[in-house]
Amino acid sequence: MSTEAAYTAEHQRMVVNALRAVLPERAVLFQAEDTRPYECDGLSVFTQLPMVVVLPDSEEQVVAILKICNALKVRIVPRGAGTGLSGGALPIADGVVLSTARMSRIVNVDPYARTAVVQPGVRNLAISEAVAQHGLYYAPDPSSQIACSIGGNVAENSGGVHCLKYGLTVHNVMRVRMVTIEGDVIELGGTALDAPGLDLLPVFIGSEGMLGVVTEVTVRLIPKPRQARVILASFDDVVKGGNAVAGVIAAGIIPAGLEMMDKTSSRMVEPFVKAGYDIDAEAILLCESDGIPEEVEEEIARMIAVLEKSGATAIAVSNSEEERLRFWSGRKNAFPAAGRISPDYYCIDGTIPRRALADVLLGIQRMEEKYGLRCANVFHAGDGNLHPLILFDANQEGEFHRAEMFGAEILEMCVEFGGSITGEHGVGLEKINQMCVQFSRSEMDAFLAVKAAFDPPMLLNPTKAIPTLQRCAEYGKMHVRRGMLKFADLPRF
Amino acid sequence: MSTEAAYTAEHQRMVVNALRAVLPERAVLFQAEDTRPYECDGLSVFTQLPMVVVLPDSEEQVVAILKICNALKVRIVPRGAGTGLSGGALPIADGVVLSTARMSRIVNVDPYARTAVVQPGVRNLAISEAVAQHGLYYAPDPSSQIACSIGGNVAENSGGVHCLKYGLTVHNVMRVRMVTIEGDVIELGGTALDAPGLDLLPVFIGSEGMLGVVTEVTVRLIPKPRQARVILASFDDVVKGGNAVAGVIAAGIIPAGLEMMDKTSSRMVEPFVKAGYDIDAEAILLCESDGIPEEVEEEIARMIAVLEKSGATAIAVSNSEEERLRFWSGRKNAFPAAGRISPDYYCIDGTIPRRALADVLLGIQRMEEKYGLRCANVFHAGDGNLHPLILFDANQEGEFHRAEMFGAEILEMCVEFGGSITGEHGVGLEKINQMCVQFSRSEMDAFLAVKAAFDPPMLLNPTKAIPTLQRCAEYGKMHVRRGMLKFADLPRF
Repeated sequence: MSTEAAYTAEHQRMVVNALRAVLPERAVLFQAEDTRPYECDGLSVFTQLPMVVVLPDSEEQVVAILKICNALKVRIVPRGAGTGLSGGALPIADGVVLSTARMSRIVNVDPYARTAVVQPGVRNLAISEAVAQHGLYYAPDPSSQIACSIGGNVAENSGGVHCLKYGLTVHNVMRVRMVTIEGDVIELGGTALDAPGLDLLPVFIGSEGMLGVVTEVTVRLIPKPRQARVILASFDDVVKGGNAVAGVIAAGIIPAGLEMMDKTSSRMVEPFVKAGYDIDAEAILLCESDGIPEEVEEEIARMIAVLEKSGATAIAVSNSEEERLRFWSGRKNAFPAAGRISPDYYCIDGTIPRRALADVLLGIQRMEEKYGLRCANVFHAGDGNLHPLILFDANQEGEFHRAEMFGAEILEMCVEFGGSITGEHGVGLEKINQMCVQFSRSEMDAFLAVKAAFDPPMLLNPTKAIPTLQRCAEYGKMHVRRGMLKFADLPRF
Repeated sequence: MSTEAAYTAEHQRMVVNALRAVLPERAVLFQAEDTRPYECDGLSVFTQLPMVVVLPDSEEQVVAILKICNALKVRIVPRGAGTGLSGGALPIADGVVLSTARMSRIVNVDPYARTAVVQPGVRNLAISEAVAQHGLYYAPDPSSQIACSIGGNVAENSGGVHCLKYGLTVHNVMRVRMVTIEGDVIELGGTALDAPGLDLLPVFIGSEGMLGVVTEVTVRLIPKPRQARVILASFDDVVKGGNAVAGVIAAGIIPAGLEMMDKTSSRMVEPFVKAGYDIDAEAILLCESDGIPEEVEEEIARMIAVLEKSGATAIAVSNSEEERLRFWSGRKNAFPAAGRISPDYYCIDGTIPRRALADVLLGIQRMEEKYGLRCANVFHAGDGNLHPLILFDANQEGEFHRAEMFGAEILEMCVEFGGSITGEHGVGLEKINQMCVQFSRSEMDAFLAVKAAFDPPMLLNPTKAIPTLQRCAEYGKMHVRRGMLKFADLPRF
């Protein structure tokens, strides 16, 4: 992507001066050495220096920034901690990056109502740390939870290993205060179970910064489970492993975690982590149960029965917290392990119905041959969320391009099996072409109409998440879901 | 409300002829004797004959009807089973009522994925009946579940006694097919845990027919719990009862049901139902636990400990399914019992934070004196959802008006305590004035913008759910929530 300035020095000066009228000097960055840290997010293959970066520390300042940008018709990319993996926070060349990093105060913790009110820059893990004294925690746990912020979690509807049982961000956020492009402060949702009016909170959660800027979030806290234990099971066949996952869910069990790794993944990670994985197994499963000890014991027994019936060749159950963490350590270090055995890797994020797990794994194996690249498969299997890691070397001519094509084909296969092109990483810039495959034109028109309802001048993170008609036409692939009903022309009156 | 025709016979004939071009003759009703059954919903104090009623039996017919109404600029009120309690399905004099009653097919049940695909006219209870053979059921259970339809449940985001643990309609519906006013068929949501694009499904659920017409719903099914037991507890003071509710939740328990009735309610219902309620208690609580027997036993013991600590004067636990149903029979018959002791009653529906339960009960007692009317209080206490039943006699001059004022004041008190003006019955026509108190103008503008994004000509159930600026000005009461931040005028550039 070009880093050539798409604006005049005079225009930049005017925008900077306008922003400095309402912000302290240190909160407005515009020299390249200051804006460089904001040139990309976790999808670092794309970079772009922004014209200006602003760092507000209050809602009033956010209101002021948005009013100024709206008046001057300057585009804005909101940014949390910059750990996103789909390029949602990639700057626009002549735009402003609005970072909420300095709005990092925990406003209130109510252990009685089990809620916490936090500013958007508060780190995900910092919430759980702040409420641990009450025996509570905030459930969604993306891999980046040490670094990522709740504002970014809201923008991307982040998940994590435990979201099968405890839900995504949308299930754990009760209320959001946000500022519209016009500078109006709006509250979405609330702490009541239901509320009148349109339920705009879930639209805002996962809207990737396109509808407004979040200034305060009320999260739901839940009690820490008294016990957790995990089963480690081996399978000599990915089909059997996939069927075991479906079998556990079909038995009426909602595990606290249900993860699957293929042989490439366990062989990649075991020498590095020594988690105790069976490196001859074609697939291994990790099935966690948490709750009161009696409940855990009963659920573990029921899961073992299903795994055995599905043909597990070996089964181990953690007998201590130390052993539980060791069993998990392999799964949690899969991404760093990929970095050890391959110069580069490309993490894909898609979803499929659980019953299609085995077919999708076989499909990915065929694509490995087609593209001449290896792929390690790490799945949030319980909720059908895939993270294939495509291994490549960007220094080898053509490998990056082949990895991109490989990833796109995996996502499109997900849609063909009735799944979707993102499980938890968002669309951002990375997957905007696949949106053309996932949705019909009418559906995208509905998205754009709602976008325009919140942001009529289309200044908030444009070019992300929702493709234009033109972009889909250029991509040249069409909506593949079972076709919409056609209706014959109506009689004329 | 006037029943005088607001259209010419010629206009009606043209609309009928246009609709008959795409619908069978029996599916287009326009004679008063045929349209009379559609003149009101469950809020029967308001009635209005519609110009035309249509009864499509397929998605293609819904598409055709909406295209015709859009072309002719005729307003449409979608209608499920007509059991709604807030007037959401009240016809418009010169409009069309679109009833989905004839779209009542269960399209598919997948016990493996635990989903059912149904048409909107399928009755709520019929889903559970159809899947009972698989040990599954559909959780939301509004009191009207024998009669109400899933399409109406989607429009109103219906709840029920068990929604504290199992959620409202929005938590149990995975996917909706709907038709826009322009005749486009759109799918919202999906069976994956997360999906790309804006999450428009929760906006649609509870949108009271203002955004589109639902033609197919995919619901989540859950396994029937193996056991359920209920505690019946008495308190000599409503404050103690209210604190007991908050205490149960604060102890980390999510009961399958947590209901509260005041003395007026138990005295009203006991002679009629013989549920075994303590008619000298100021408040009684029903606390249910369900799950595996060991879990139920442990949870019942923990709840009893909290209830005793909160000062319960008597505690009984059901020891058989028969006894459990008897304990519930009083609660479930509260509305019919009100009908036995009072010529008329007005059921209010609001929410409050649980900690405010006792204060709100005391507030309602003061209003009983102010308006000279009795009120029986039946609460879904666990989720802070109140159903005060105001008893009145419409044949007594002024009593209906006093009941209306009483109800409005209860709802406005709910907002003052940080709650909301509807828990599960919707806004409809009944509570449109209280929307002015609940929301700021910016928030209502956001609702209207989203409404216009789906329905630019504003033909779908207009005048319901979202008040106009003019209507709020006429009502003369203002938004009472803690004020929005003011921002000083910006410097001019």
